[in-house]
Amino acid sequence: MKRYFCILLVIFFVCGVFSPRRSDAAVKDVDLLIVGGQVVTMNGQGVIYPNGYVAIRGDRILEVGDAARLKSRNFRAVSIIRADNKAVLPGLINAHTHIPMTLLRGLGGDVDLQEWLTRYIFPAEAKNVTRDYVIAGTRLGLVEMIRGGTTTYADMYYFEDTIASETKRAGVRAILGETVIDFPAPDNKTWDEAIGFTEKFLRQWKGDSLITPAIAPHAPYTVSTSHLEEARRLAEKYDAPILIHLAEAATETEFIRTKFNTTPALYLESIGLLSSRVLGAHVVHVNDDEIAILKKRDVGIAHCPSSNMKLSSGTAPVTAMLKADLRIGLGTDGAASNNDLNMWEEMDLAAKLHKLVTMNPTVVTAEEALRMATIGSARALHLEKEIGSIEAGKKADIILLDLSAPHLTPMYNLVTHLVYAAKASDVTDTIVNGKVLMRNRRLLTLDQASVMAAARRYQKKVSDSLKSK
Amino acid sequence: MKRYFCILLVIFFVCGVFSPRRSDAAVKDVDLLIVGGQVVTMNGQGVIYPNGYVAIRGDRILEVGDAARLKSRNFRAVSIIRADNKAVLPGLINAHTHIPMTLLRGLGGDVDLQEWLTRYIFPAEAKNVTRDYVIAGTRLGLVEMIRGGTTTYADMYYFEDTIASETKRAGVRAILGETVIDFPAPDNKTWDEAIGFTEKFLRQWKGDSLITPAIAPHAPYTVSTSHLEEARRLAEKYDAPILIHLAEAATETEFIRTKFNTTPALYLESIGLLSSRVLGAHVVHVNDDEIAILKKRDVGIAHCPSSNMKLSSGTAPVTAMLKADLRIGLGTDGAASNNDLNMWEEMDLAAKLHKLVTMNPTVVTAEEALRMATIGSARALHLEKEIGSIEAGKKADIILLDLSAPHLTPMYNLVTHLVYAAKASDVTDTIVNGKVLMRNRRLLTLDQASVMAAARRYQKKVSDSLKSK
Repeated sequence: MKRYFCILLVIFFVCGVFSPRRSDAAVKDVDLLIVGGQVVTMNGQGVIYPNGYVAIRGDRILEVGDAARLKSRNFRAVSIIRADNKAVLPGLINAHTHIPMTLLRGLGGDVDLQEWLTRYIFPAEAKNVTRDYVIAGTRLGLVEMIRGGTTTYADMYYFEDTIASETKRAGVRAILGETVIDFPAPDNKTWDEAIGFTEKFLRQWKGDSLITPAIAPHAPYTVSTSHLEEARRLAEKYDAPILIHLAEAATETEFIRTKFNTTPALYLESIGLLSSRVLGAHVVHVNDDEIAILKKRDVGIAHCPSSNMKLSSGTAPVTAMLKADLRIGLGTDGAASNNDLNMWEEMDLAAKLHKLVTMNPTVVTAEEALRMATIGSARALHLEKEIGSIEAGKKADIILLDLSAPHLTPMYNLVTHLVYAAKASDVTDTIVNGKVLMRNRRLLTLDQASVMAAARRYQKKVSDSLKSK
Repeated sequence: MKRYFCILLVIFFVCGVFSPRRSDAAVKDVDLLIVGGQVVTMNGQGVIYPNGYVAIRGDRILEVGDAARLKSRNFRAVSIIRADNKAVLPGLINAHTHIPMTLLRGLGGDVDLQEWLTRYIFPAEAKNVTRDYVIAGTRLGLVEMIRGGTTTYADMYYFEDTIASETKRAGVRAILGETVIDFPAPDNKTWDEAIGFTEKFLRQWKGDSLITPAIAPHAPYTVSTSHLEEARRLAEKYDAPILIHLAEAATETEFIRTKFNTTPALYLESIGLLSSRVLGAHVVHVNDDEIAILKKRDVGIAHCPSSNMKLSSGTAPVTAMLKADLRIGLGTDGAASNNDLNMWEEMDLAAKLHKLVTMNPTVVTAEEALRMATIGSARALHLEKEIGSIEAGKKADIILLDLSAPHLTPMYNLVTHLVYAAKASDVTDTIVNGKVLMRNRRLLTLDQASVMAAARRYQKKVSDSLKSK
C-alpha cells in the first residue's frame, strides 16, 4: 500500500512541479476575445458554433471555436466583447458601389435611365464633384457601411486616392478602382491624364494592409478597345484588380452588337480582358456559354439585385451562375440609384428575386445569399484567402448582430432570419482588421455629427446647382 | 395730430376691449398637437406640408396644415409632440396577414410550398394552436407592427375573437376575419361550428371603434361552393367584410380549372361572391378581363410582393391594376413565410419588382407604393373614408419617422426616401385613434419584455412538438 502511495506521490510531483504548469505554459496573449453568441463561420463546412468564441491577435483571427473549450485555451485578452444573444458573422462585403454617390442619394428617382443620367446625375456630378465632395461622400458612405456591418467594399469612382485615404483613416477595407473612361472626368480631363493618375495611385497604395488599389475601366461601351487593352496592361504591371461594369443593360448589349457584332462578355473575351483579376459588376445579360467563359477565365461577379430591379436592367442568371460555381458576390451599386448601401436588403432580394424568376422556392437559399454577401463577395474579389469567413489565419473582419429584436423572435433557423428578417440596424459592433470601428452602435473612427453636417451642406449645394442653368 | 391720436385710441379700444379678444374666442381645445416635421398627408392632391402641424381631438384629426398658420389657430393642447426633422405620415395599413403566425416566424424556409405546409406549418399548427398560443402570437405581432408604424391590419386566422380582444387592448385598428375552411381548424372542428363561432364573433364586435369583425373563407380551393355562398350570406346579414385568398398560386388555378373549368376569379364571380365587401389577398393569376370584373365589382386587393416572391407564387399584374384604378393595397402575409411584418419592405419591393417585370423604371413610383401602403390599403379594405390619409375628420392614425439617419441623408425627395431607404426602425412614434401607442420607440400599451418571453417559450414548445412523432 505504502509503495503505491509513494509511486503516486512521485507521479504528482513530476506532473505538478517538475513539469511546467499547464495553465502558465499555454497562456495565449490575444488582443480581442469575442465570447458567446452564435458564431456563423461561413467556412467551407458551414460550421456554426451555437455558443462560440473568436480570438483575435493583431489584425488576424487566431482561433474560432466552441466557448465550452474556452477555459482550456487559456487566453489572456487585452479586450473582451461579450456576444450573448448575438450572431457573430464575418463582415459583409459590398462587391460593387460608388461611395461618393451617397451625396446624390435618391436624386431623381423613378425616371427613365437616360433621363436620370442626363437630367440629374451627369449635371450634378459635373457641377459638384471635387476632391472635397469626394471626402464628404466617402465619409457618409463609410458611416452607413460601418453601421450596417459592411467591412469591405469595392468601389468605382473618381479621386480614388482620396477615397483611399478616407477609407484607411476610418479603418475600413476596400478595393478601390479609379475609373477611366473615354470622357472628361471630374478628376482627369483626358485619357492620358487618367492613366497617369491611376498609375500613381496603384504605385502609392500597393501593399497597403486595408486598401487594394485597382483600375476601373467604366464599361465595354464607354471605353475604346485600345483603351481597355491599355487598362489591362496597367493592371498587369501592378498586379492590380480590374473592376468593370459588364452586361448591365439592354442598351449596352445593343451598342456592342452594333459595333462589334457580339455580346459584351464575348467582346471582352475576344480582346483578352477577362482574367482572374477582373470583377464584373451586374453581369445581367449573359447566356450559359458566356457563363462558362466567365468560369474558365475565373472572373468575379457582383450581383446587384436592388439596382437591377430599380433601373429595370433585367435579372442576372444567378441560379445558373451558382450552379457553375462562379465567383459571385453581392453589391449595392451607388446610393444615387439604390438610395442606400444596405447589404441586408441585397441578401433578402437575391434570395427572393430568383425564387420568383425561376418559379422555384428552393433556389438561392438563405445560406447561399449569406454566402454571396460574405465569402462569395470575397471570392468575386479574389480575396477569399484573406477575408469572407471566420477562420483561423484570416483577417479579423467581424460583425455582431443583436438577435433579441421582436422581428427576429422566435428563431427556428438563424441563417434564414439573417437573410429574411435581420436589418442593418440590428448590427451592434463592427470590427475590421482586428480594430473595433463600432461598439454598441457607437462609431469610434468617424465623427458622425460632422459627417452628417457636411452631407447636408452638399445637399443644398447640389440642389442649388441643379436649379441654375 | 391730437385728433388722429384720439381716433387711433378709439380704434384700439374697440378692437382690443369691446370686441371679444381674438386669442380667447378662437381657442380650440385639442388633445394632441403634432408640431413641425414634414407632414405627408396622402390626400387626393398629395399635399405635403414641409413644416406642418396636425391637431387631434379625441380619436379624430381636427385640422392639418402649415405650421406657419399655427399661431392664428390658437390651439390649447393637452399634449404636444414636436416632430422636427421627422416625417409625419398616415399610419401604414397591412392589408393581409395572419398575425399569430409570428410564432412560426421563418419556420422551414426555402423549401417547396407543399413540403413547407405538410412538413412544417400544418403539424406545428395542429400541435400548438390554442387560445393561449393565439394571445402570445398576436401580442408579438402587435409589438412588431406598432414598432414599424403599422396602425391597421387585416387578418385571417382562427380564434379571431381573442385576436380582437388583444388588438383592442393594445389600441391597434384591425379588420379581423375568422377563417372558415372545409377542414377541422384549431378552434372549430366542423363547418357548422365555425359558422356559429363566426356569427357570434360578428355580432359581438359589430360597431367597435377599432375592430371590424369579418368572415374569411380561406380560398376558392379549400371551401366548397355552397359553403362560400353561406359565408357570403353571413357577411351580408352582418354587413361584414369578406377576406379571402384569391388566385395566389398556379396550383389553385389548376384546381379550379379542373373542377369548374374556369379561373379562380371568374369562379367567384359566377357564384356571386365578388362585391364591395370583398378583399382578395394576393390576386396574382388574373388577366385584364378579370381585372375589369374586379373593378366592376369594387373588390379590394392586397398585393403581397415579399410572399409572392419567396413562395414563387408569381407576379401580380400591379401596373394593370393601378391603371384600372383598382382598390389595391399592400400586405405582408404571415411571418411564417415572410419572416417579418414589415410594410416598409413591401413598399420597397412593390416599387422595384414591377419596374423589373415590366422593364420600365417609371412604373409603380415611390409615391404609388406609399399610396398603396396607406390610402390604397384603406381603399382595399373599403375604409378610405375613415383612415389612410391625414385629413380633417379622419381617424387620427399617424406615425412619426426620424429623418436624421445617415441612410436618409442627404434627402432630395422625401417620398422616394420613404419608399427606397426608410426602415421600420426609423419610426419613432405610433398613434392610433388619437392614442399614442409608441413614444420615442417606447411601447406604451404592451409590455415588450413579457411578450418576448412568451414568444420564446412557444419557440421551444413548437420546436419540441416538431421533433416528436
